[in-house]
Amino acid sequence: MATQKFHGIFPYLVSPVDNTTGKVKEAVLRRLVEHLIAQGVHGLSPLGSTGEFAYLSFEQKLEIVRIVVEAANGRVPVVPGVAAYATADAIQQAERFLEMGVDGIILVLQTFFSLDKAAVERYFRTVAEAIPCPIVIYTNPQLLGSDVTPDIVVALSELPNIQYVKDATSNTGRILTILNRAGERVQVFSASAHVPLLTFHMGAVGWMAGPACVLPATCVQLYELAKAGRWDEAWELQKPMWQVNEIFQKYSLAACIKMGLQLQGFEVGDPIPPQSPLSAAAVEDIRQVLTTLGAIA
Amino acid sequence: MATQKFHGIFPYLVSPVDNTTGKVKEAVLRRLVEHLIAQGVHGLSPLGSTGEFAYLSFEQKLEIVRIVVEAANGRVPVVPGVAAYATADAIQQAERFLEMGVDGIILVLQTFFSLDKAAVERYFRTVAEAIPCPIVIYTNPQLLGSDVTPDIVVALSELPNIQYVKDATSNTGRILTILNRAGERVQVFSASAHVPLLTFHMGAVGWMAGPACVLPATCVQLYELAKAGRWDEAWELQKPMWQVNEIFQKYSLAACIKMGLQLQGFEVGDPIPPQSPLSAAAVEDIRQVLTTLGAIA
Amino acid sequence: MATQKFHGIFPYLVSPVDNTTGKVKEAVLRRLVEHLIAQGVHGLSPLGSTGEFAYLSFEQKLEIVRIVVEAANGRVPVVPGVAAYATADAIQQAERFLEMGVDGIILVLQTFFSLDKAAVERYFRTVAEAIPCPIVIYTNPQLLGSDVTPDIVVALSELPNIQYVKDATSNTGRILTILNRAGERVQVFSASAHVPLLTFHMGAVGWMAGPACVLPATCVQLYELAKAGRWDEAWELQKPMWQVNEIFQKYSLAACIKMGLQLQGFEVGDPIPPQSPLSAAAVEDIRQVLTTLGAIA
Amino acid sequence: MATQKFHGIFPYLVSPVDNTTGKVKEAVLRRLVEHLIAQGVHGLSPLGSTGEFAYLSFEQKLEIVRIVVEAANGRVPVVPGVAAYATADAIQQAERFLEMGVDGIILVLQTFFSLDKAAVERYFRTVAEAIPCPIVIYTNPQLLGSDVTPDIVVALSELPNIQYVKDATSNTGRILTILNRAGERVQVFSASAHVPLLTFHMGAVGWMAGPACVLPATCVQLYELAKAGRWDEAWELQKPMWQVNEIFQKYSLAACIKMGLQLQGFEVGDPIPPQSPLSAAAVEDIRQVLTTLGAIA
Repeated sequence: MATQKFHGIFPYLVSPVDNTTGKVKEAVLRRLVEHLIAQGVHGLSPLGSTGEFAYLSFEQKLEIVRIVVEAANGRVPVVPGVAAYATADAIQQAERFLEMGVDGIILVLQTFFSLDKAAVERYFRTVAEAIPCPIVIYTNPQLLGSDVTPDIVVALSELPNIQYVKDATSNTGRILTILNRAGERVQVFSASAHVPLLTFHMGAVGWMAGPACVLPATCVQLYELAKAGRWDEAWELQKPMWQVNEIFQKYSLAACIKMGLQLQGFEVGDPIPPQSPLSAAAVEDIRQVLTTLGAIA
Repeated sequence: MATQKFHGIFPYLVSPVDNTTGKVKEAVLRRLVEHLIAQGVHGLSPLGSTGEFAYLSFEQKLEIVRIVVEAANGRVPVVPGVAAYATADAIQQAERFLEMGVDGIILVLQTFFSLDKAAVERYFRTVAEAIPCPIVIYTNPQLLGSDVTPDIVVALSELPNIQYVKDATSNTGRILTILNRAGERVQVFSASAHVPLLTFHMGAVGWMAGPACVLPATCVQLYELAKAGRWDEAWELQKPMWQVNEIFQKYSLAACIKMGLQLQGFEVGDPIPPQSPLSAAAVEDIRQVLTTLGAIA
Repeated sequence: MATQKFHGIFPYLVSPVDNTTGKVKEAVLRRLVEHLIAQGVHGLSPLGSTGEFAYLSFEQKLEIVRIVVEAANGRVPVVPGVAAYATADAIQQAERFLEMGVDGIILVLQTFFSLDKAAVERYFRTVAEAIPCPIVIYTNPQLLGSDVTPDIVVALSELPNIQYVKDATSNTGRILTILNRAGERVQVFSASAHVPLLTFHMGAVGWMAGPACVLPATCVQLYELAKAGRWDEAWELQKPMWQVNEIFQKYSLAACIKMGLQLQGFEVGDPIPPQSPLSAAAVEDIRQVLTTLGAIA
Repeated sequence: MATQKFHGIFPYLVSPVDNTTGKVKEAVLRRLVEHLIAQGVHGLSPLGSTGEFAYLSFEQKLEIVRIVVEAANGRVPVVPGVAAYATADAIQQAERFLEMGVDGIILVLQTFFSLDKAAVERYFRTVAEAIPCPIVIYTNPQLLGSDVTPDIVVALSELPNIQYVKDATSNTGRILTILNRAGERVQVFSASAHVPLLTFHMGAVGWMAGPACVLPATCVQLYELAKAGRWDEAWELQKPMWQVNEIFQKYSLAACIKMGLQLQGFEVGDPIPPQSPLSAAAVEDIRQVLTTLGAIA
């Protein structure tokens, strides 16, 4: 387990699965990990939404974590998503991932029946007390149903291993609220849906994002410029990169990242059914943007 | 496998789980099945939303189906819910349930990334083609994210084993649309959220509902009156029974049914964490309504 | 002012406006009123949502009420919509309409900033206390933002002139709740979005609907059959008529009714800009359904 | 009419109305204008959402514009909101306001029946072609129903008098999209819901906000620091000021600003009924934050 604090660029890894057999495509996943580390990323996050966690069986999740941990081989921290409806399911996933050598987890609450605030907080608290590793709280009310409000984050930040939060609401005011009230105990990662420079300016320590899979070097450079306070250069880099998000918002996120990687030569396959493969027009849109940005030849 | 057509009252069974060990409480589930059959229900549906399917592991689901099939012992059809994000997961669940002796499935699509209509249809079609048993299509856009529109239902009704639909939108117009366009191929079950008499009047063949767990005899009587066209008596029965729905809409459905059963002497336990147990006031509300209706002493 | 209780079919009238000059097209509106009364409708409701109330100036509203009251000439009650954000605006409209001879109002609350339950109730109560005429409470949370819940309706039903409710949620359970709790003080009108027979079965006294503009005779016949308890014949009439709602739900309601009337020879014009006129395909859809139903030659 | 470009701090003025008589409270509105100009604001925007435009009659709107124009007396530009459902209504308002001497308008589209993109664009285009003054496009899909998407803004920016946009989605990515694509033709104002510094960093020319009514001097100072590129000092100022937004998000915006001004000695009255006055607890919250920030003694 790496002991340094998490910081910098953590790509959310796609989950390359053979949609006929259900097997995880180990070779391509290993090659992707190798490539991203070579490009300078600071950590790796499998099993996020980009990783289509909702579409994977527990066996597939275990297989993916095993491969990424082995391939990373301690060079950068591996921090997978742990998403569940039931508290017991989250604990079981986290325990197994920890045994396999992950450095922390991104903890995600899925919601079926609506939960009161006490139930939301209890989920994170119970898992954090059972699992002795650094935890990133993930909050995304639109996609996940429940809101881990700033109040809940502040309350949870009292736990020693709840050390990070990734707020995906695209409401930077929430981040400022959290930093004003718990900035000494919890650090913030920027979300992909947002313009990350703004969050860096507010004090974010890094950026967890699907698009970093296809633009790892540019993301790393953006992070370094922000860390050095070279805001003008950073803005010049951010502006064209925003096109990637514009395209990815038009279509389904995981489908786009998988296609971008395919265009870069990584045979990660289509999104897991019943999701539809992207249309030819969407593929062309993605090809064009990645070409403009120099991310494919 | 029972060969008669599905019809009548199918209670959605709760899932009695020991929240400390994760074990399914077999004895109480068997006793509940026995009780419901004795009260005259026409079928049993474990693993619906009332069954907290989203909170159960695959192992727990298998265990529940095994127990219910064994306990029913062919006296009434067992038609469990099969809910999944990934098509492959649905097929795997359905195959295993079928091996265990279920008589059909209620097929449910969970949605993470939003799906186009083709993807929604493909999910149901792929499963139906792989699984040779009668299928009930379940549609609940509010709870599940994707809408299985009347157009999709009509298209799917061409498949021989897609024989039923349960529309939970509380929009009876949709049911009329489906019956007008595919009424010769697909039969309708009424949802619990709605006033079932109205749906019977439109031609529904039965009622799948959580509340039938706590009011089985009354539900059976309502169905018999409707079948006999004795609408006035049926309305007199429906009116007071609506109070149960009013109470259950105020709180979380599964929590309410579990509590109602506890008040009737079935130790089915609390909802699965992180869901909160009901407040004392909610328990009192439920006790009062069930007492008024003669469902507890 | 007509003194009988409101009951039966009340078409929501469209608002024929010359979109160049803003003038109300008096001749066509008078001809429509004459036609509808000849077809047997039991009342007339201008300024509902079908009447595009949100798009009209106060002067246009006054002009429309004047014309409809004059044209009806006491033969059927005229019950216009009074919709407002501010309580004072509602009172001002209602006072002026009452001076012009309307028989009651449908009271509608528009919402900009979200309102607590006390504020919602206060709006209806304040207007009802200021305006001595029969009031129909209109509730449509989806379109209007605030929900006039069954609890609020029951509380308001204590006021002597709050005598009717039209619940447009398409949740017939709400209607049952209201009838169970306040059925002696408040009567229910069915909404157009729903299958009205079901609501008649529950005890509704009538049906206020835009589609009754284009199908007045059929709506009247449906009402008569329901009143006579001839449910089987009523169902045979209802089933094909449902196609009209299916078409109208695909497009914008007011645009559809205006087009249907144009196809019947009433030059009511296009929807008020910036609303778009219907596409040629939509016009064809409407023509086809109305032809099938015998509503155009 | 002032000829300089709009920039800097434009408080959205509250609408002080006597809720018994409906009269605009002229003296207090004049005093507020005088005070804000003295504090250094760069413009004044009556009839925004903070100005409760939805709750005002046309007569009240005219009266408010007259008073603000007279009181400002050319010292700063007056740019009122023009909000309407119907295109004709917007044109009528804008014409009258222009005759009274306003320097531009903030154009707002209210939506009742959902509009296609062509209809949304047509509204803004028709008004802009009819009204020869600088126009700020306002977009707030959550509050107003229709989305004026970046695509529509870019198309509209071809019109010479569509010169500004205020995007209230709290999605800074949209602002970057607009600036990347139409930054030479359209300038951006920051919204109050968001952290304005971030938007300044992206190139916004000013900030239109309700809270600037109660914190005018601080807002002006923030703007000046941002303009000078003194980002670190600006952040130190922004951080505590965020508390105001946190409080105002808990309650209704207009109610909060009105109460803040009352606490500062401006008798602007309660929000317009049926809106509820703030609770004592809310008043205490507001008093505390404003005291902390030195905005009340």
